[in-house]
Amino acid sequence: MGTITKALELLDHFTKARSEIGLGDFVRLTGRDKATVHRHLTELEQNGFLEQDAISRAYRLGPALLRLTAVREAAFPVRRLLRPIVTELAEDIGELAHASLLQGDMLSSVFHFDPLRHGTQVSFDAAEMLPLHATSSGLAVLAFSGVETTDRVLGQTLRAMTDKTITDPAVLRDMLEEVRKGGISQLDSAFDTEVTSQGAPLFGHHGRVIGALSVAVPRARATPQMMAHITPRLRAAAQAATQSLGGRYPEFTARNGAAKAPSRADQ
Amino acid sequence: MGTITKALELLDHFTKARSEIGLGDFVRLTGRDKATVHRHLTELEQNGFLEQDAISRAYRLGPALLRLTAVREAAFPVRRLLRPIVTELAEDIGELAHASLLQGDMLSSVFHFDPLRHGTQVSFDAAEMLPLHATSSGLAVLAFSGVETTDRVLGQTLRAMTDKTITDPAVLRDMLEEVRKGGISQLDSAFDTEVTSQGAPLFGHHGRVIGALSVAVPRARATPQMMAHITPRLRAAAQAATQSLGGRYPEFTARNGAAKAPSRADQ
Repeated sequence: MGTITKALELLDHFTKARSEIGLGDFVRLTGRDKATVHRHLTELEQNGFLEQDAISRAYRLGPALLRLTAVREAAFPVRRLLRPIVTELAEDIGELAHASLLQGDMLSSVFHFDPLRHGTQVSFDAAEMLPLHATSSGLAVLAFSGVETTDRVLGQTLRAMTDKTITDPAVLRDMLEEVRKGGISQLDSAFDTEVTSQGAPLFGHHGRVIGALSVAVPRARATPQMMAHITPRLRAAAQAATQSLGGRYPEFTARNGAAKAPSRADQ
Repeated sequence: MGTITKALELLDHFTKARSEIGLGDFVRLTGRDKATVHRHLTELEQNGFLEQDAISRAYRLGPALLRLTAVREAAFPVRRLLRPIVTELAEDIGELAHASLLQGDMLSSVFHFDPLRHGTQVSFDAAEMLPLHATSSGLAVLAFSGVETTDRVLGQTLRAMTDKTITDPAVLRDMLEEVRKGGISQLDSAFDTEVTSQGAPLFGHHGRVIGALSVAVPRARATPQMMAHITPRLRAAAQAATQSLGGRYPEFTARNGAAKAPSRADQ
């Protein structure tokens, strides 16, 4: 692993819950030696990717990120375009909706919104990268990726996030076939034992899949009726999002395509 | 300069106008050798800080920035808090308003908004780091920084951005004294020959200056009446912003403190 990657990976330890991290914590989290970690932290801080609290000396993510995001959004306003669509979808369904973009062979969260209408809610960590094989967003993306990507991702050892994560490439390939027909993926307890989710792909202006929209529901509320209620709304939102990103949404042959996938995920 | 800094600095070449940059352009922009630049670009891309266009092979800022910004904003919602204040200020005055945060000895843009009510407007590049000595935002920050910071910044060779940039530390020190009394800085043609601006400091919850709010006006519209109209509105916005960031705004003795600073800036 290169120096730059080692340094940038330090940033990934920040989460919504862990917004400040001290030098000692970083050493513990990474298992790397203190001098190297300190050098990396100092360089990141000097470039504004971290800032150090004047009193506690702990680090937090820095202002350079806000500036660079603003520059990216000015040219490719993905977050600005997706935010109202995700919010409206979440408000409509009454559950957490989420948009993510493909980043290497993982998904990176762009925006999520939970209308918080219930006593329980899906615990969502925007800092966590989502694996393609274990999330409905990931299956939605994988189904429309090229053969090369699918082979590469399914050719690796697939990590079981829960007891119910499907790690058999053959089963996943069958599921992807269903997702391609209906445009909707569904997984139950694959990423988190208490969560059921549906995903739909997002396409960019070159016609390539670039990410996914999804709705995540606490398992206790995820009745078949509820999931059937979600499918057309999620599909319409993904279609609207794709159009606003300059892409064209495919016509799917099975309009209630989610029906097959969940039965496999529940096996 | 360390490897990490060299790599991260590549990101600073992106601007609103230059949203995609190819390998050859990077080599030209940096004057570094192609193999090194390519290695840095690849590592940044692998970590999601860049993404490569599938067709043109040019690079653009990547999705990891959106995710990390979202994580930072969840803990420290600076951009979310400042956006409505900046927008309202800009709408009220009818000119470009801007919020920035201190990053090392420069200012990093967080949010800017121009209601675009006129035939000419201030050309604003959110990617550009703002020097403290040559911008009204910078003077507002510098006036309330510690002696150590002021001495360090004014002790360097100060770059003239225009013919009117003040680079004499003694003159700048006098101006900072005035800014400390009134809480408002004003510069004319110091950063851009065609722009006049006023700045006001923002304070964090430890009472330290953390950035600035400013209003930038095309010189042709920046009459004394106009600038006097801006002062109390900018001060009120900076006070509101500071309060929403958990800070306390000082009482300034000279309520129309901008009056002195511009006369010096115009010398």
